[in-house]
Amino acid sequence: MSQLRFAVLGAGHGGMAMAGHLGCMGYSVRLFNRSEARLIPIRNAGGIELSGVVEGKGPVELVTSDIAEAVRDADVLMVVVPASGHRYLAAELAPHLRDGQAIILNPGRTGGAFEFRQVFKEAGVHQEVLLGEAQTLLYACRNTNPGQVKVFGIKNSVPLAALPGHQTVDLLERIHPVFPQFVPGDNVIKTGLDNIGAVFHPALMVLNAARIESTRGEFQFYFEGITKAVAQVLERVDAERVAVAAALGIRAMTAREWLYMAYDAHGKTLYQAIRNNSGYKGIQAPATIDHRYLWEDVPMSLVPIASIGETLGVATPTIRHLIGLAGLMNECDYWREGRTVERMGLAGLTQKQIRHIALEGF
Amino acid sequence: MSQLRFAVLGAGHGGMAMAGHLGCMGYSVRLFNRSEARLIPIRNAGGIELSGVVEGKGPVELVTSDIAEAVRDADVLMVVVPASGHRYLAAELAPHLRDGQAIILNPGRTGGAFEFRQVFKEAGVHQEVLLGEAQTLLYACRNTNPGQVKVFGIKNSVPLAALPGHQTVDLLERIHPVFPQFVPGDNVIKTGLDNIGAVFHPALMVLNAARIESTRGEFQFYFEGITKAVAQVLERVDAERVAVAAALGIRAMTAREWLYMAYDAHGKTLYQAIRNNSGYKGIQAPATIDHRYLWEDVPMSLVPIASIGETLGVATPTIRHLIGLAGLMNECDYWREGRTVERMGLAGLTQKQIRHIALEGF
Repeated sequence: MSQLRFAVLGAGHGGMAMAGHLGCMGYSVRLFNRSEARLIPIRNAGGIELSGVVEGKGPVELVTSDIAEAVRDADVLMVVVPASGHRYLAAELAPHLRDGQAIILNPGRTGGAFEFRQVFKEAGVHQEVLLGEAQTLLYACRNTNPGQVKVFGIKNSVPLAALPGHQTVDLLERIHPVFPQFVPGDNVIKTGLDNIGAVFHPALMVLNAARIESTRGEFQFYFEGITKAVAQVLERVDAERVAVAAALGIRAMTAREWLYMAYDAHGKTLYQAIRNNSGYKGIQAPATIDHRYLWEDVPMSLVPIASIGETLGVATPTIRHLIGLAGLMNECDYWREGRTVERMGLAGLTQKQIRHIALEGF
Repeated sequence: MSQLRFAVLGAGHGGMAMAGHLGCMGYSVRLFNRSEARLIPIRNAGGIELSGVVEGKGPVELVTSDIAEAVRDADVLMVVVPASGHRYLAAELAPHLRDGQAIILNPGRTGGAFEFRQVFKEAGVHQEVLLGEAQTLLYACRNTNPGQVKVFGIKNSVPLAALPGHQTVDLLERIHPVFPQFVPGDNVIKTGLDNIGAVFHPALMVLNAARIESTRGEFQFYFEGITKAVAQVLERVDAERVAVAAALGIRAMTAREWLYMAYDAHGKTLYQAIRNNSGYKGIQAPATIDHRYLWEDVPMSLVPIASIGETLGVATPTIRHLIGLAGLMNECDYWREGRTVERMGLAGLTQKQIRHIALEGF
């Protein structure tokens, strides 16, 4: 098999880490970003300098704000933008796709692959592409200086699912030689609903908004920001998410199970497991509520969960409370901006029909 | 006119202040409380010692947990219990009423008089009583030691309304010689919906829950607890309350107008008016979320506003978000515990019918 060629779409923290990492591993990589501002320092430096768990300078073949150029010869398109940018990016990509290209959302949040599929459908894309989403971003990283990224860690195991799910094996086969960290993620219902950020991020932002704004985040986000009362809310948000997954025939991981799996943190209740998670120690709150924990996680995680719930008759009152309050706080109608069943192409469908799309395709 | 005889029902901070104050003014006063525990020190001391803006020892003729004894010879029954105790107290009172007695709720929160009326109706009370509610408690006070109350202030002007409203003048005539602070409050729709505590208390508790629990209230409740994001939520809660009042033909005071009226605090927005209110300086947050700002103000202020709104087709989504989250935090279904239109005897009524009851009676 000849060497894969990559396009990385998005030059934020994650996109830079991925492009730099691919470059360091010797792959051909082109880097696209919508705005030139982020690209200039990378272009000037002729690549991306990584430090941390990956050290070295990753060459980037082309740094461009022209998406056609970026993806023309690519075998794999790695989408590394906030999920709120997925719709725009999918529409930009649509005219430039080739048969056989693979597109991986890093990550999809909830319903990213569904939204891509719907945009492609509306744009009349007839090319056969492999479309999939990762459950989370591979990297824990931060863009420290222009053209430099610090990689704190690379996750050992990240579930990846194709849409439709029967292509997951093809997608993994393609990407495994490069990223052995990807493991089979069943299907995009599972990757989309095993979204633990959806449980923690918006609730913690909303229920600590005054403290974030009045101290500029000078407190421990998980330890001081989650008390018994807040944990009651988290438990309900989590239960609603798991119930929506169950209505789609998926046994989603609970937040408590995830704390045990990811951090070895145990406890009889979610609250206890959080208190017992030393991994949360020292993590400060965001300095402002104008943060992706609200502007990405509310419209692209909570809204799709609540919207699917509504379609299937599963009540999600607590999630709706958070969507409403977050919208008031950030003066944004997240129901209008968010990933509803209409945007995912799932409006009016039954559980069976949604599962059919997720697993078998059209 | 002969000297009025009083029964004060409730021996918390407010009830003790009122009983002591009446005693100091030379009125005959009997003090009732459901539990004996609060009464024993008062009985032992033979009265209530006041300090602050009222100084002296107010004799109490009878201190009792027998409500029949307390109210038997009373001309005026001053109800000074949390609104969550109104239904119980009304039911206890019902068998012991006499024609011509006056009952004043100090205060009613939202719909207190409606709830009393409904309980009396269900209990078959046929006596002609004067029923009314004050918009707020006359006293700022605190029970400092057994049998002692510190009175920080007595409000200059507290609206009082009778149910039905045409009796407001009779009620004021009765009480004015004793409490000239009471002023005509139109009707109980107005006193019930000019409920500014409903706007501030639950929202501040819910949106600062983690900080309250993790610091035991060690922060400035209004200054640090209300930031721009939280003020956006307060603005909406206030707008929903004012809209429900408008649907009943009442022009309710906005929270911003109230800050100007009560504190001379001005500002183009609610947020600015709060920042400019020196009266909020130094007020610490409650030390726990198990506080009447939630367990009284949610079921007895927010629930009736939302429930009346629902009956009249006025949406109150923000108020509902707060009711939902507060309920999760305190593990209580406030919709079940709260003062709905059913409990107020207003279920299924039109605007016109509710106004008719409030103004004209049956």
